[in-house]
Amino acid sequence: DNLKEVLVRVSKELDNCMNFWLKYSHDNENGGFYNCLSAEGSVYDTTKYCWLQGRQVWMYSTLYQEVGRFRVTEVYDAAVKGGEFLIMFGKNKDTGKCYFSLNRYGEPIKVQRTIFSEVFYVMAMTSLYTLTSDEKYKVEASEMMSRVVYWAGEGAAELGRPQLDGEQVASSLAVPMCILSLIPMVERVGWVRPGLEDRCVKELLLHHDKEREVVLENVTMEGGQVQGVAGRMMNPGHAIECGWFLLQHATKNGDKELAETAVHSFIETPLAYGWDKEWGGIMYFMDAEGLSPTALEWDMKLWWVHLEAMVATLMVFDTTKEEKHWDSFEKVFKYSFDNFPLSGGEWAGYLDRQGKVKMDFKGGPYKGCFHLPRALMICETLLQKLLANQH
Amino acid sequence: DNLKEVLVRVSKELDNCMNFWLKYSHDNENGGFYNCLSAEGSVYDTTKYCWLQGRQVWMYSTLYQEVGRFRVTEVYDAAVKGGEFLIMFGKNKDTGKCYFSLNRYGEPIKVQRTIFSEVFYVMAMTSLYTLTSDEKYKVEASEMMSRVVYWAGEGAAELGRPQLDGEQVASSLAVPMCILSLIPMVERVGWVRPGLEDRCVKELLLHHDKEREVVLENVTMEGGQVQGVAGRMMNPGHAIECGWFLLQHATKNGDKELAETAVHSFIETPLAYGWDKEWGGIMYFMDAEGLSPTALEWDMKLWWVHLEAMVATLMVFDTTKEEKHWDSFEKVFKYSFDNFPLSGGEWAGYLDRQGKVKMDFKGGPYKGCFHLPRALMICETLLQKLLANQH
Repeated sequence: DNLKEVLVRVSKELDNCMNFWLKYSHDNENGGFYNCLSAEGSVYDTTKYCWLQGRQVWMYSTLYQEVGRFRVTEVYDAAVKGGEFLIMFGKNKDTGKCYFSLNRYGEPIKVQRTIFSEVFYVMAMTSLYTLTSDEKYKVEASEMMSRVVYWAGEGAAELGRPQLDGEQVASSLAVPMCILSLIPMVERVGWVRPGLEDRCVKELLLHHDKEREVVLENVTMEGGQVQGVAGRMMNPGHAIECGWFLLQHATKNGDKELAETAVHSFIETPLAYGWDKEWGGIMYFMDAEGLSPTALEWDMKLWWVHLEAMVATLMVFDTTKEEKHWDSFEKVFKYSFDNFPLSGGEWAGYLDRQGKVKMDFKGGPYKGCFHLPRALMICETLLQKLLANQH
Repeated sequence: DNLKEVLVRVSKELDNCMNFWLKYSHDNENGGFYNCLSAEGSVYDTTKYCWLQGRQVWMYSTLYQEVGRFRVTEVYDAAVKGGEFLIMFGKNKDTGKCYFSLNRYGEPIKVQRTIFSEVFYVMAMTSLYTLTSDEKYKVEASEMMSRVVYWAGEGAAELGRPQLDGEQVASSLAVPMCILSLIPMVERVGWVRPGLEDRCVKELLLHHDKEREVVLENVTMEGGQVQGVAGRMMNPGHAIECGWFLLQHATKNGDKELAETAVHSFIETPLAYGWDKEWGGIMYFMDAEGLSPTALEWDMKLWWVHLEAMVATLMVFDTTKEEKHWDSFEKVFKYSFDNFPLSGGEWAGYLDRQGKVKMDFKGGPYKGCFHLPRALMICETLLQKLLANQH
């Protein structure tokens, strides 16, 4: 009964959310999607952020292919148009490097010295290939994936951030995590790199500090302690997201030991230490020694953190069928649905520590059509499966 | 009486603050200053931030030269040693560009594509020249000042941030403001650039949006509206700091009209719209159309904002002798002294909207020995002058 009730709420929320993006975010004049949308859906900034462009294309393509009620022309067309905008304007044609942001006409504003715009470009292109079977998306995805892996490894210097003498060489959780998450997607376009998946998993496991039983954002390439604030930084939501990526990978490969580490060390434990005992919800940043983080937003409650935790706990429950994981899911679900939803679909992204909405826009430079619908889609599928198995 | 009471508190706070930095921040082994200091004075990160290295050198040199009770060997020696560390390690010897951060041994970690490390390098070197009369500091200051002005203008491309087609060319308040503030300092080392001061003032005045009666962080080079969030961004504390720089400049030149604009449009008005009617204190970021800012920390109360407001309002009172400005000073003074001080000297830097200390460290990547002692030093001098004139 509880399962069913949750499923109804999840599905309804997914519909409301997608209605919002379908209605307000399309730029039919210039192509691409507006990202900065107020609570009412008005465009408060016309900048187009490439992370969010790629994510929205992926979301539309994926919903069309995987969730029956979204198999409609409007979704298909918007995915393709969004992808064309990205191919046309999203990358520097000479270097293949993606931009971070474009103006409404597609002219580049900013380029980051990282690989994240590229990661979401790959996601978009892989999903467009399976959507349309058009070979050009396969080529786009494969070529960009090769660059991502190169720039994340031996080609790092080409990103333009000088490696200076005093900087500690470190592994940042986001990089192997993003690449691991791309692997099942690029396999579908025939891109294979033997050993890469294992290398990512190995690097991710270095971030698990067994002594303190925490997941660290930055560790040395041997898994040692990085100096100072960066070396003690924890982002529980990030660890939890990484947890469900690892769990999926472990399940696929029948790796029980890895599944256990993913469940216990990357999901259960970070959820426990990340939970705000005073106000509820999951902290954004924490320090492994309990010091004051230096990031000003450390105690805020972010929408995506809670959505990753919903996905992760439900996936763990689906895997283990242990009641305690359903309880964890329910706790996160209740906090999230009590605090984030705004009327008219899509959630607030940023609450203060107490759980009050601190910024009421629905789309912003780092918040697009992605975390909410992705999580709701995954939860819907898992809940349907759990319900089907009950009967 | 009130004046006297305030003076006593200000002087005591200055002593406590300086005792903290003198006791805990010196790295006697490697040179330079530790910046990341906990409430108790322990080093929680050994990174040395060049903004803060330069500022601390300037603070020590200036206190030694201008405030009798700091004219002690310990302060003099620490200023010189800090300056030598900066000269030795703070800049790339080939390009003259300063680093943003160094490890404890002085090896570079990071370089920013801006001119701010350089601005504080110039401040440090000018003050060391007047402290020691050693010509080498004069040379260091002059050469770096020339580079700052070049990189802020026609040499911008050399900073390494590509100017892309879609980016709106804009004036950022910080740049002309920093350069204006440097001019009286570099004059003391004989560096003069005719017309520069007027150009800075002119550019700063473009940021005053007369229609909405607000100060904007970013405007076009003609004073027009920049698109989106960046174009509507206001930082009341920044406007107020700019206000007292402009007021000093206007006073020096007997420019009454500019003085009035500084007082009314850069100090009085931003203090009024920046004041949080619900919880007190001054907002960090606001949007000129009242939308939700996108910076996560927008509603926080920052120490430096309040200190700049203390300096500005007291300076305005000193200039105008109007009671209402003393009242403004008292309001900011009371909020600040009620909320920011931590035991053992130095203040907390970051309060939440409600005024609760959100991070309890005394020194961090952007918080060093600068804003608190500078503001207290200026207020002490102004209060002493006001008291002397009363009698």
